[in-house]
Amino acid sequence: MRYKCTVSYDGTMFHGFQIQGSLRTVQDEIEKVLLIINKKKTIIYPSGRTDSGVHALGQVFHFDSDIEMKEENMRNAINSRLPRDIYIKKVEIVDENFHARFSVTKKEYHYLIDFGEYDPLKKNYRYYYPYKKIDLDLVYQASQIFVGEHDFRSFTKNQKLSNTIRTIYSIDFEWNSSLLTIKIVGNGFMHNMVRILVAMWLECGRNKYSLEDLKSILGEKNRRFAPKTAPSNGLYLFKVYYD
Amino acid sequence: MRYKCTVSYDGTMFHGFQIQGSLRTVQDEIEKVLLIINKKKTIIYPSGRTDSGVHALGQVFHFDSDIEMKEENMRNAINSRLPRDIYIKKVEIVDENFHARFSVTKKEYHYLIDFGEYDPLKKNYRYYYPYKKIDLDLVYQASQIFVGEHDFRSFTKNQKLSNTIRTIYSIDFEWNSSLLTIKIVGNGFMHNMVRILVAMWLECGRNKYSLEDLKSILGEKNRRFAPKTAPSNGLYLFKVYYD
Repeated sequence: MRYKCTVSYDGTMFHGFQIQGSLRTVQDEIEKVLLIINKKKTIIYPSGRTDSGVHALGQVFHFDSDIEMKEENMRNAINSRLPRDIYIKKVEIVDENFHARFSVTKKEYHYLIDFGEYDPLKKNYRYYYPYKKIDLDLVYQASQIFVGEHDFRSFTKNQKLSNTIRTIYSIDFEWNSSLLTIKIVGNGFMHNMVRILVAMWLECGRNKYSLEDLKSILGEKNRRFAPKTAPSNGLYLFKVYYD
Repeated sequence: MRYKCTVSYDGTMFHGFQIQGSLRTVQDEIEKVLLIINKKKTIIYPSGRTDSGVHALGQVFHFDSDIEMKEENMRNAINSRLPRDIYIKKVEIVDENFHARFSVTKKEYHYLIDFGEYDPLKKNYRYYYPYKKIDLDLVYQASQIFVGEHDFRSFTKNQKLSNTIRTIYSIDFEWNSSLLTIKIVGNGFMHNMVRILVAMWLECGRNKYSLEDLKSILGEKNRRFAPKTAPSNGLYLFKVYYD
């Protein structure tokens, strides 16, 4: 039977989600636990990878198992064996047609930027923006250029992808004193796409690029024109949507 | 001249404040930086130690230096060389009579307990309380027994201290959804005192001890009767007060 799991993790101490040899990854930690529960090697299929340092509040993966267990019991069985920086929030038994990656309809990422005084206790959980002179209206205007269907080739690390057209449904800014949360919902995001976009919007707020420049860069379809990447520690995979 | 520094740090990756051989400590990291700035070994004097895993939002220390520097310049000189889990919030040039430890009038500690769902991103910053059945009114009533001047010998790890009489001025409970912040202000706290007190109050809320038991334990003046210690990751040295 197929289990769908919603998982949160603190990305700080992981070399990203996907297995990479002997490096510590989220996938490896979860598969080690499932090997014990299922008594055989069990591969998990996530909605997509996350990079080193990137956090998840609602990543989703699925796996198949011959073991029949109630959802809550499976959740407890996994959680009791996981390291403390990964936590299964929910387990659901799903139809075999469900696929954590191919069934995705939307994804929501949050990016947290703090413009206030540095707090060492939050260093891994937000981007402390080092420049105090920034026009945040411009940052917002820059972001709105990207809402809709576009070819985002200029804004991904992976220049070899054949299809780089994606749709961003919404980009919202939410303020909580000095902390800005940028909420981005789209049908899919490529490698480093959110971090490159955020970095370029911030550059725009510092007048390093104009709004017109950003539109041109979007048209260039070449990463060379968007060289910045915002730090991984501000990025959260907030939610994965399915029908 | 004497510099007074207010410092915050994330205690997670430190073996406490005080130098301990080759272990990573807050004192060692700061003194390494002062060696560069002052061009000679410079000892720092904190208001008191904090244990491994304990955080600080307003720890205070002082040091002496022949180097004359504006407060803000000294702050920047130190911060630019510190690791990212320590941050100097304020530097003040003070009179030679000021001593970060001996001039303390009050100290305020906060202890954070979360009774809600576990969040792996906050694992180092609060105590996730594992028991759901607890009478929180009783926990509060238990805490209030300790306000005032008492001999706290039963509630310290250091049983060899000659004077174990301390005054707690106030103990306040502040709720933010599932998160309880206990704010304790007193004229001084001994080794593990806050963590032992909090652990015993929680035990009281689970009916492991009655309010009368707690009063007796206070009277016993022997740590043997208060065997629990709450985890270090929920504890914050919030503020040190001087006249």
